[in-house]
Amino acid sequence: MLGIMQDWPLTVNKILEHAKRINPTREIITRRVEGHIVRTTYANLFDQSKQVSNALIDSGIQLGDRVATLGWNSERHMASWYGAMGIGAVLHTINPRLHPEQVAWIANHAEDKVLIFDKTFLPIVEAIKDHLQTVKTFVIYADADTMPENSLGAIPFDIWIDGRSTEVRWGDFPEDTACGLCYTSGTTGDPKGVLYSHRSNVLHTLITMGKDVMGMGADDVVLPVVPMFHANAWGLALSCPAVGSNMVMPGAQMDGASIYELLDTEKVTITAAVPTVWLMLLTHLQENNLKLPHLKKVLIGGSAIPEKILRAFEQDYEVDVVHAWGMTETSPLGTANALLERHAGMTEEEQAKVRESQGRPPYGVELKIVDDEGSTLPEDGAAQGNLRIRGHWVVDSYFCAEPGTTLASDGWFETGDVASIDADGFMTIRDRSKDIIKSGGEWISTVELEGIAVGHPGIVDAAAIAAKHEKWDERPVLVAVKAPGAKVSEKDLIAFFSDKVAKWQIPDTVVFVDELPRNATGKVLKNKLREAYGDVLLA
Amino acid sequence: MLGIMQDWPLTVNKILEHAKRINPTREIITRRVEGHIVRTTYANLFDQSKQVSNALIDSGIQLGDRVATLGWNSERHMASWYGAMGIGAVLHTINPRLHPEQVAWIANHAEDKVLIFDKTFLPIVEAIKDHLQTVKTFVIYADADTMPENSLGAIPFDIWIDGRSTEVRWGDFPEDTACGLCYTSGTTGDPKGVLYSHRSNVLHTLITMGKDVMGMGADDVVLPVVPMFHANAWGLALSCPAVGSNMVMPGAQMDGASIYELLDTEKVTITAAVPTVWLMLLTHLQENNLKLPHLKKVLIGGSAIPEKILRAFEQDYEVDVVHAWGMTETSPLGTANALLERHAGMTEEEQAKVRESQGRPPYGVELKIVDDEGSTLPEDGAAQGNLRIRGHWVVDSYFCAEPGTTLASDGWFETGDVASIDADGFMTIRDRSKDIIKSGGEWISTVELEGIAVGHPGIVDAAAIAAKHEKWDERPVLVAVKAPGAKVSEKDLIAFFSDKVAKWQIPDTVVFVDELPRNATGKVLKNKLREAYGDVLLA
Repeated sequence: MLGIMQDWPLTVNKILEHAKRINPTREIITRRVEGHIVRTTYANLFDQSKQVSNALIDSGIQLGDRVATLGWNSERHMASWYGAMGIGAVLHTINPRLHPEQVAWIANHAEDKVLIFDKTFLPIVEAIKDHLQTVKTFVIYADADTMPENSLGAIPFDIWIDGRSTEVRWGDFPEDTACGLCYTSGTTGDPKGVLYSHRSNVLHTLITMGKDVMGMGADDVVLPVVPMFHANAWGLALSCPAVGSNMVMPGAQMDGASIYELLDTEKVTITAAVPTVWLMLLTHLQENNLKLPHLKKVLIGGSAIPEKILRAFEQDYEVDVVHAWGMTETSPLGTANALLERHAGMTEEEQAKVRESQGRPPYGVELKIVDDEGSTLPEDGAAQGNLRIRGHWVVDSYFCAEPGTTLASDGWFETGDVASIDADGFMTIRDRSKDIIKSGGEWISTVELEGIAVGHPGIVDAAAIAAKHEKWDERPVLVAVKAPGAKVSEKDLIAFFSDKVAKWQIPDTVVFVDELPRNATGKVLKNKLREAYGDVLLA
Repeated sequence: MLGIMQDWPLTVNKILEHAKRINPTREIITRRVEGHIVRTTYANLFDQSKQVSNALIDSGIQLGDRVATLGWNSERHMASWYGAMGIGAVLHTINPRLHPEQVAWIANHAEDKVLIFDKTFLPIVEAIKDHLQTVKTFVIYADADTMPENSLGAIPFDIWIDGRSTEVRWGDFPEDTACGLCYTSGTTGDPKGVLYSHRSNVLHTLITMGKDVMGMGADDVVLPVVPMFHANAWGLALSCPAVGSNMVMPGAQMDGASIYELLDTEKVTITAAVPTVWLMLLTHLQENNLKLPHLKKVLIGGSAIPEKILRAFEQDYEVDVVHAWGMTETSPLGTANALLERHAGMTEEEQAKVRESQGRPPYGVELKIVDDEGSTLPEDGAAQGNLRIRGHWVVDSYFCAEPGTTLASDGWFETGDVASIDADGFMTIRDRSKDIIKSGGEWISTVELEGIAVGHPGIVDAAAIAAKHEKWDERPVLVAVKAPGAKVSEKDLIAFFSDKVAKWQIPDTVVFVDELPRNATGKVLKNKLREAYGDVLLA
């Protein structure tokens, strides 16, 4: 027997339709790449998005075709998203921080037909234009006055959509239709595409609106520093219009002073970014003796939160910190850290330990940790295992991958992280699976060792790696960068670990280097370090 | 092109499975009908629900079969919901406040096979047992010690499930499978059944978790005074386990002292009920000089909120009031009233006017107002029209109704209410469509007239009705009940309206009566009043 309720497909165009109907005057405030601020409303964004749809149809875009962007967060970028998604095209956000060769590789792999981009990225597009095999139309986020010279035959975005009809049919396709495409930037191998569906995006939107995740409402003003090209913008381009929050879009300027100016003038209540951004902001606040009277909540993800950021926000500025974890493959919300009632009675130190955790999965996703044979490990806060995830907004298969090659044999997605999970479901990332050090059957977290090393006043950067060892298979070796002028010795640094970890977890030796090798998005290339120093403990 | 994300059907069993996995130790605290408090956890509730499933299977229940309850809010009632829904049976909540004849009619119409009930309702079941055509199994919420004598061959609930396996397959059917059944109790005609699907219930759950609706989290303690047999319990039996809120179940005792005791001892943070309950609570608080230090939010629905309740909660007790509106046919959430940023700058009086509104629809439902010909009216806050609604959790057709007979010709559900909608989407119920007074082409709200009348110190109850009129078609007549000993005259009362509504809205005459006729659920029977007094203005 079936229920007898009304229904329609869960497609993302319904989100902007709702915003237009219920919150037409709520605003999207954007800092242009030229530096000035422009304001628009959800009602205008709706019309603009419909015009983008008609422009795309004119450019030959049909259901399922890929439309790429290389764009900062802006209302024009939002209009591109909804304009493409509304007609069932796939909006493909390309990360402009990748090497130009990778950008070209990704655009060709995705078979993008239209490429819309900020003029900041014109040099990239000019450099790769001869390698782009499928892009027929280039559009630059600009008007006639701000349009840069180019050799692409590109059209200014504003002119591309100007005067077009705002009438076009949106939706009207099944909810599992493809909606967005985002490639992961691993440290090795080719990038892999994650193809979100309308359904997965809408369900992700609904769950992120909950109190224990982002919890925004119509009276909030949200500043997504996290870029729309990064892991689906943490869903904010969908969840803000769904509830009617104002959106403040920082464009290309994400330095401390620029972010502070937006937080202050627009009375931002919720913001979201990776720790690096917050370090810049906090430095700016401290140097200029500024406060954050309007800000209530900051979402931090992308990497572990340094304790000083947590403490500064909560104690110096009275802003709640929500530590969240996810991946491009998980839309991205995997977990969020909201303290429980019973944590209120804990000591500050105990609370800090819970706060360091990446948090708990909301309804709709499930986590587990397994050993190298795939057997489930206990959730006792101590056992470390390979983290697997499944859920409504978790990848099933990479774009164009052979079916069945993306997931583990049990049907769960292997995150590539090593984690522990405690009895309350709080998950803590311990390491990347390929980085963790397996010493005599025990697993040693390189993340933990690195956190301790950079806590030494003479060390500014550090990476722990597994070095081959005759007796223990692997033992930790620390590769460290000294602070300018610091006189720290290997012996000093090894001694610094003695009261902080178990004896068998202390690195066997330290290699001092001038700089750690990193990829385009700032991740340390540990495979390079293992190649260079993986044999230092062998005779 | 389809997205390539993982997925599974949106079935409600996944909610309790999530609670068991992530919030196993969070509690459901119940006041038994015997008066004492019992505590259980989501982990135990999960096991108990699985045992109910096995008991139901043993009783011959299969996919789609109806399982009825006549029950107060309790953890046993929760286990019955999940136990039935998990195996794809339909949990049918019957309202015990209906006339026993109606209870029998509903149970027969639904073809309920199992009836599980609180012993409070044994007299009802005994009275109708010979009329129940399909019920084969009677179960009473009791253990061996508390089991009442009966002539039904009924089984005590605890013994019915005791010792049964906690292994049974849940879910594994399509998400549009029927899940719950609830009959509306109109003032006229036979009750009509609304058959919720798993999908409609899950989507309703996700949206009610948002900040501008209920906004509960894992650290909240929620007391649903609203009964599980009333409009799907406002979704709380689903949304609380979805986030891990503790639930406090009041059982049969909903007087001010009992509710206060639970609010206080269990440190309740969010509670929900109709205004009558809050009047009893506020009286108890005032008489005993008590405070509400833990309570943060109160959800009020079911009828318009008297201003004194709003003011008392917000000013005297510093509790946020969320005014919500819905119907059995809308699962029930239709709208919720959360003030906007821009309301902060308004005068108290202006704010109060916004607060009186029933609020705005969340993503997933849409409202409109139409005239008697079905043409859409402007959303300007002034125009009054017939309120129509559509959405993911709005009825499509009543249970066993001829297809196409439930909705208006445009496919929207006709609520039977007259409302206005302002430019921000705030909807205000003005009247029931069949009650509103159509005087010379203008519509006069009986709700507004009644609100003014009971504001007179000499009047305790009042109903305004449309009386036939030779010139204006209809004119308002007020039927009023005086306070004991009050000496108010017709002339006094008419004069009392003069500065509160336009002249043409003032009632033509007043009829004083000892008592207003009401149905089983407390609604005034205006059709009876129109029969009695509808001709008083004719010559």
